[in-house]
Amino acid sequence: MQLQNNIRTSSGWDIIENSFDEAQLVTTGSNFMIGNGYLGYRGTFEEWGAKEYVACVVTDTWDQAEGSRWSELCNVPNGLFTELRINKEKLSIFEGETTEYLRSLDLKHGINQRKVTWTSPKGSQVQIQVEKFASHDNHHLLVMRYAFKALSAGMFQITTGIDGEVWSINGEHFKSFDTTEKDHLIAVQQHTYEMNTEICVVEGIYISGRQPEGSTLNKEGKRFFREFQFDLQKDEEIVLEKVVSIIHSNEVEDPLGLARDEVKQALQLGYDELKLAHKKHWEAFWEKSDIEIQGNLEAQVLTRFNIYQAYIATPTHDNLPIGARGLSCQVYQGAAFWDQETFNLPMYVYTHPDIAQKLVAYRHDTLQGAKRKAKNLGYYGAFYAWTSGKTGDELFPDFFFTDVLTGRPIRNHFNCWQIHVSPDVVYGIWLYYEATLDWDFMVNQGAEIIFEVAQFLVSRVHFKKDKNRYEIIRLLGPDEYHENVDNNAYTNYLSRYSLQKACEVYQKLNKENPKVLAALSEKIELPETAYDSWKEIADLLYIPETHPETHLIEQFDGYFKLEDIEPDALRMRLIDPGEYWGWPNGIAVNTQVLKQADVVQLMAMLEGFSQEELTANYEYYEPRTEHGSSLSPSVHALVACKANHEEEAYRYFMESATIDLYNASKKVLSGGSFLGGIHTAAAGGVWLIIVKGFAGFAVVDDGVRFNPKLPKEWEGLSFRLDIKQCELLVNLDKDALTLRRTDGGEHGLKVYFKENAELLKPKASLVFKL
Amino acid sequence: MQLQNNIRTSSGWDIIENSFDEAQLVTTGSNFMIGNGYLGYRGTFEEWGAKEYVACVVTDTWDQAEGSRWSELCNVPNGLFTELRINKEKLSIFEGETTEYLRSLDLKHGINQRKVTWTSPKGSQVQIQVEKFASHDNHHLLVMRYAFKALSAGMFQITTGIDGEVWSINGEHFKSFDTTEKDHLIAVQQHTYEMNTEICVVEGIYISGRQPEGSTLNKEGKRFFREFQFDLQKDEEIVLEKVVSIIHSNEVEDPLGLARDEVKQALQLGYDELKLAHKKHWEAFWEKSDIEIQGNLEAQVLTRFNIYQAYIATPTHDNLPIGARGLSCQVYQGAAFWDQETFNLPMYVYTHPDIAQKLVAYRHDTLQGAKRKAKNLGYYGAFYAWTSGKTGDELFPDFFFTDVLTGRPIRNHFNCWQIHVSPDVVYGIWLYYEATLDWDFMVNQGAEIIFEVAQFLVSRVHFKKDKNRYEIIRLLGPDEYHENVDNNAYTNYLSRYSLQKACEVYQKLNKENPKVLAALSEKIELPETAYDSWKEIADLLYIPETHPETHLIEQFDGYFKLEDIEPDALRMRLIDPGEYWGWPNGIAVNTQVLKQADVVQLMAMLEGFSQEELTANYEYYEPRTEHGSSLSPSVHALVACKANHEEEAYRYFMESATIDLYNASKKVLSGGSFLGGIHTAAAGGVWLIIVKGFAGFAVVDDGVRFNPKLPKEWEGLSFRLDIKQCELLVNLDKDALTLRRTDGGEHGLKVYFKENAELLKPKASLVFKL
Repeated sequence: MQLQNNIRTSSGWDIIENSFDEAQLVTTGSNFMIGNGYLGYRGTFEEWGAKEYVACVVTDTWDQAEGSRWSELCNVPNGLFTELRINKEKLSIFEGETTEYLRSLDLKHGINQRKVTWTSPKGSQVQIQVEKFASHDNHHLLVMRYAFKALSAGMFQITTGIDGEVWSINGEHFKSFDTTEKDHLIAVQQHTYEMNTEICVVEGIYISGRQPEGSTLNKEGKRFFREFQFDLQKDEEIVLEKVVSIIHSNEVEDPLGLARDEVKQALQLGYDELKLAHKKHWEAFWEKSDIEIQGNLEAQVLTRFNIYQAYIATPTHDNLPIGARGLSCQVYQGAAFWDQETFNLPMYVYTHPDIAQKLVAYRHDTLQGAKRKAKNLGYYGAFYAWTSGKTGDELFPDFFFTDVLTGRPIRNHFNCWQIHVSPDVVYGIWLYYEATLDWDFMVNQGAEIIFEVAQFLVSRVHFKKDKNRYEIIRLLGPDEYHENVDNNAYTNYLSRYSLQKACEVYQKLNKENPKVLAALSEKIELPETAYDSWKEIADLLYIPETHPETHLIEQFDGYFKLEDIEPDALRMRLIDPGEYWGWPNGIAVNTQVLKQADVVQLMAMLEGFSQEELTANYEYYEPRTEHGSSLSPSVHALVACKANHEEEAYRYFMESATIDLYNASKKVLSGGSFLGGIHTAAAGGVWLIIVKGFAGFAVVDDGVRFNPKLPKEWEGLSFRLDIKQCELLVNLDKDALTLRRTDGGEHGLKVYFKENAELLKPKASLVFKL
Repeated sequence: MQLQNNIRTSSGWDIIENSFDEAQLVTTGSNFMIGNGYLGYRGTFEEWGAKEYVACVVTDTWDQAEGSRWSELCNVPNGLFTELRINKEKLSIFEGETTEYLRSLDLKHGINQRKVTWTSPKGSQVQIQVEKFASHDNHHLLVMRYAFKALSAGMFQITTGIDGEVWSINGEHFKSFDTTEKDHLIAVQQHTYEMNTEICVVEGIYISGRQPEGSTLNKEGKRFFREFQFDLQKDEEIVLEKVVSIIHSNEVEDPLGLARDEVKQALQLGYDELKLAHKKHWEAFWEKSDIEIQGNLEAQVLTRFNIYQAYIATPTHDNLPIGARGLSCQVYQGAAFWDQETFNLPMYVYTHPDIAQKLVAYRHDTLQGAKRKAKNLGYYGAFYAWTSGKTGDELFPDFFFTDVLTGRPIRNHFNCWQIHVSPDVVYGIWLYYEATLDWDFMVNQGAEIIFEVAQFLVSRVHFKKDKNRYEIIRLLGPDEYHENVDNNAYTNYLSRYSLQKACEVYQKLNKENPKVLAALSEKIELPETAYDSWKEIADLLYIPETHPETHLIEQFDGYFKLEDIEPDALRMRLIDPGEYWGWPNGIAVNTQVLKQADVVQLMAMLEGFSQEELTANYEYYEPRTEHGSSLSPSVHALVACKANHEEEAYRYFMESATIDLYNASKKVLSGGSFLGGIHTAAAGGVWLIIVKGFAGFAVVDDGVRFNPKLPKEWEGLSFRLDIKQCELLVNLDKDALTLRRTDGGEHGLKVYFKENAELLKPKASLVFKL
């Protein structure tokens, strides 16, 4: 089936590019990428280099480039680098003639493929077929099979090795570039500037077909490679298998030794074995995570593409953050933002609790960083980093954007005023706990986080004695166009929520694990008054009221008094299209135009809003939202479902699902910053829209609820959920919602549907007529 | 004595311009102006018009020009307009040859004079001698004597009348222009656009010498005038006396009738009588307000020039504000800022308590406006306007400056975050009360203001429960380069001060006037808890601590962490010299560079800082201050005295005293706004430097204190004070400070000098050896 642009799908499990478009280099490199949460390898061509945005981004390698203000992940030398020459003419998509072209991504197995038939400017002909994957069996490994067939006789030369000239958006990270060759393996060993992290890339090859006439080992600049000559007759084929292992010293003590061992071992197993193990892993993943859509192949492949991208961005091997651009490039520093809890965590919570557990544990691992941040800013407790890497210390710089009109740096306050990230972390923990009932995690890690966040809020709120209420002053909500606002609806609601959870956990611990509570209180030096403070603040925190007639909730104090203009009219005021719209004097600052709507975001996350509130607020905020954030469409899709705006819901679903694949988001640059790469939160958002929006799934205190709104464009929908220790297969079609429990647990699961509640027993089914 | 530029003084009581400099049109028009607090008439030439910045600004005529965002005073038609032609050649400084030139201002009597001998391009010669004043006997009147002498025979034509083509910086205020002639008086009657205020200008003339050959009455555009022809022989002289009365409907019901009556009556009295009455008033003023400086004629004339300018800017006929540019032009809307209390009020408090009483009563008259402002912003009590006109409603627009780099308006927050204006009003009331002991004023007006400001502070502060302290969040201190700061030292100190005064007044009222207190409490609906709230906030308000080692007080939370750079180095970052340095992204925002130093300002106003604090803070903040405000040098001079930096004190004194006369402040434009005119606060500041700085005068609870530091450039210094119902003549020379009481009061006045305190009895003297 043909999709938009030059993309098609054959099965709903793959994306295939029919032709090459040089203008889309940044985007297609991201879309066709492979990865395993440890490393991301862009879907670029083997003969390419930095200027074509080749990148292999490795998690847990945070480092500040020489002379940079940024701590970011390193882009490491490209071990798959391979050039092919026929009679000295180099294969290149930019020269000669490409008569057959295909680049594809097998979403089911995480395998990138390329098939090209090429005629050189002087008339030599070759066909190449390449297949590669980032192993999910051993996350250090990149594995490639590079086959070329002489369509005309000639001298074929393969240049293959490690290319250390990497694309690094904020400067050079490596102060050294050491090369070794041993046991037929070549290796590059580098150390980073700031952290002195050692990063090793070891490459091994196996050539089948026939052996080369000659070979040499060379080092040119930062390329370390071997050259092989083949004098081929027409139709002769050579197959090169490459295995690359990438390991750094933050993970093991001797990266070079281990990488060598791994490559050796992998070469012994051979390409097919490696691929088989890798595929098994992917099949197991989809077994739990696939969403099957009946009657709409485009929606089907878009959904899988987004789940694929969300998954390869997620470190499943360790407690590490999901980057806002995953591992598709260095943008946003490979660090977690609040998106992790609000857009990416839910899918894992309800399908792979084991992965979800790592993500929430990451917030425990970084608690000390959050405490340092709070202290640096004059607070106590845990103020989580806006941009959170390994340690949880704040990575976001004081000056992020540049005023494109003056060239002056802009002091953005994401790092100090966007405090909702701390309640969001609590929200994520509660999401995990509520779904898994994993009290052990709460006792050992969750409670400490929740208490420290509550303490942060104690230090952050202000009491208005004359109004007998607490307020939260000087905020940035998710809507980043309005900095320096008070009583932001989203922040205040979420803050109350997290204080309530702190009280709940405190009470439960006090009852069930009093010794743990005592030890924890001592460890984190909880004042005796802590519980009372949390309770009082939760009770007296000012929550922007719902207007009794309009049902509107004001986004922040004074928002409704701002100039009321729609985004398109406002856009006309731009002097430069690259201008940042927000702080300090961007065009949106003194208007009601939003980057994303905080009240809508709130309604996507918390339950308990009336139908009037859902509808009124969605209808008010939606036309004022510019969707300057890629997070915005999925939230609008989800709340549009709740607000009974089903057509808009589907439009926003499509917008969110196509941001990357159709390159719907044109913003590669904003406020002077490169912002390309995969929008990982939007990818996670697609799962949310379908499950929480179209299927209307929600967790309630004593069970689950469904309020399905199957898009009229679809015949049906099925997916699995892992919830409250039950395994659920959900089937939705135009007539009915069918729930089947596949687990053999002990207890029934209470299911709410419209006004009814029924108990779903193990191995049983429930059918709700629509 | 020759002063700077082309200015000299003959007696220390006058300024004389030797030659004409076209480049200084804006400045000299202001410097040579006349006025009486009701109207200000710029020191321009009689034949000039709008393009030479002729202006007659009248107080109490606030109005918004058509299409403007500004409410400002009207510049009214010029009733002194007079052109002279010889054989049809028009007298003009820009043509022909001016062989004799003199423009002078008699500071002692408020009389502007001009003497010119002129040869026309065709060789005719004339000498003119003009004298004019804004009557202090009847503040509606402008009076002029215009004499011309034929130095060559010819046909002389005088065109004299009312020129309605006025210079108005923000657009047209008048929707009508009606003219009448009756009883030989000509009149212009106009109504303003916004307020429909009627403003009448009536002109009458008296010609002596000989009568004209012919005369006509004409109206051309907005000029309404008469023409007179004189066929003169060489050395014949004609004298034209003009009387103009300017009255508006905010003052009387029938402005036209009254103005006609006044002009008739004045013409009957004649020029000499009118001048005599005017001079008497001025002599009486100087009797109390002169500062005599021995041994330095330049300092002498500068001091008198500044007192003169401060005085003619002050409405003494009604409870009206002193404008930040007085009545020298429309800039700053003829409205009061905090400068009124902090820079201009003190001189009157200690020399003319009757005038001071009107200024503080003005704050009572505008209390309802201040209450409306508080309410509009979500507070209660009285939040005084940053820019205060007749009603006290906020006149300052949300968007004041323009970003000269982008042309976009800037949302400045002077009107909503610069809350110190309310405590400053209390400071002024206390200054008045402490000096005059006028308890009646306090009972009838002062207490109400002080209580309403205290209530405003109750509604404005935030309590940090965990720190058991009140804080004041999101402020702009006097240093306007840093908006949006917390716990600004100046604001917090002054807020505590005004809450303490509220408690003091409440207690005293409760004891001495309980019925008044009860009635007042009822009238302003004071909650029963009011006193307790004030007391608690005063006790628990966070006051930035003095560092125990450095003795520094941080200007606001986090100030010391800002980039530390000096103003000259910072200036290099300007892209456009006209850029505004402050909010939102001006070059000073993220640095320690100040427009004016808040802590220094604080130390100029409140007593009780240790010598270490005075010295350390002055030395820290002074090099970081850009003096972007004309208020800054006088405060630095004053505190430099206290900090024992006497050379700097004198340098800042000279800077402050010469801002206007030597045109030391070049900033006619800032952030795209015209900001010319007399710096009225700086003028008041000169008095403050001398009396509170060089003489070291301070009021203490039970008396006064002197800590004199006579500049080495001076021989001596004398002035009078009216303090705590005693009249004091202060003489300071290099050897001694001599205080003489000239009143016959009942009680002694306690005088502190160094470690001693002595009682100064009525009619007695005290001599303190230095």
